[in-house]
Amino acid sequence: MKITPLSDLSGQPVTMEGAAHVTRSVPIGKADGAPNTAVRVFTMAPGGHTPYHAHAWEHTNYIIAGQGELVDAEGRAHPLKAGDFALVLPHEKHQYRNASASEPFVMICAVPKSYE
Amino acid sequence: MKITPLSDLSGQPVTMEGAAHVTRSVPIGKADGAPNTAVRVFTMAPGGHTPYHAHAWEHTNYIIAGQGELVDAEGRAHPLKAGDFALVLPHEKHQYRNASASEPFVMICAVPKSYE
Repeated sequence: MKITPLSDLSGQPVTMEGAAHVTRSVPIGKADGAPNTAVRVFTMAPGGHTPYHAHAWEHTNYIIAGQGELVDAEGRAHPLKAGDFALVLPHEKHQYRNASASEPFVMICAVPKSYE
Repeated sequence: MKITPLSDLSGQPVTMEGAAHVTRSVPIGKADGAPNTAVRVFTMAPGGHTPYHAHAWEHTNYIIAGQGELVDAEGRAHPLKAGDFALVLPHEKHQYRNASASEPFVMICAVPKSYE
């Protein structure tokens, strides 16, 4: 077993096209022997967002801190706050955004380990 | 996509032998079309714990609130607190306990959906 405090994570900038002001950490992943599910943590600074895109795998989310938005395939923005769970199904177009002008938006985004 | 606030969950008592003062909710699971990973939330009242057991699937944890312990295969108790991630590998004997006399211990425990 392995225990990793959130405060030990050091995020790396996400350089994917369409992402802005986002860092990524992997507290549970292939390097830990995770059999199926990898846990990534994304931190978005004010103004930050992920790409507005779709792909063949799902996102399984828990919001750790802050105020954000999840944009759906029709472009509608749904509020996300600390304590919310979200599921984005495979092939659903989506985007996560920080909705606060002052606080970071921090969320878990679990995926199948092959998409870590 | 689906968004579920933590405050909307209504836990059901866990009646498995070896469990005490634990409730379980499933904010993301098979009923939501989860392709791979089911997210359960366990809430342990003071004195609460899960069984001390092992099984063929892993646990992927994030601690939402409280102070707890994760007991390993040798019987050693490792502290768990809000903000910690944990991975328990398949076939590792383990137990989760609330370590506080006054506050609930609340954690995410994700598993492959077939073990939801």
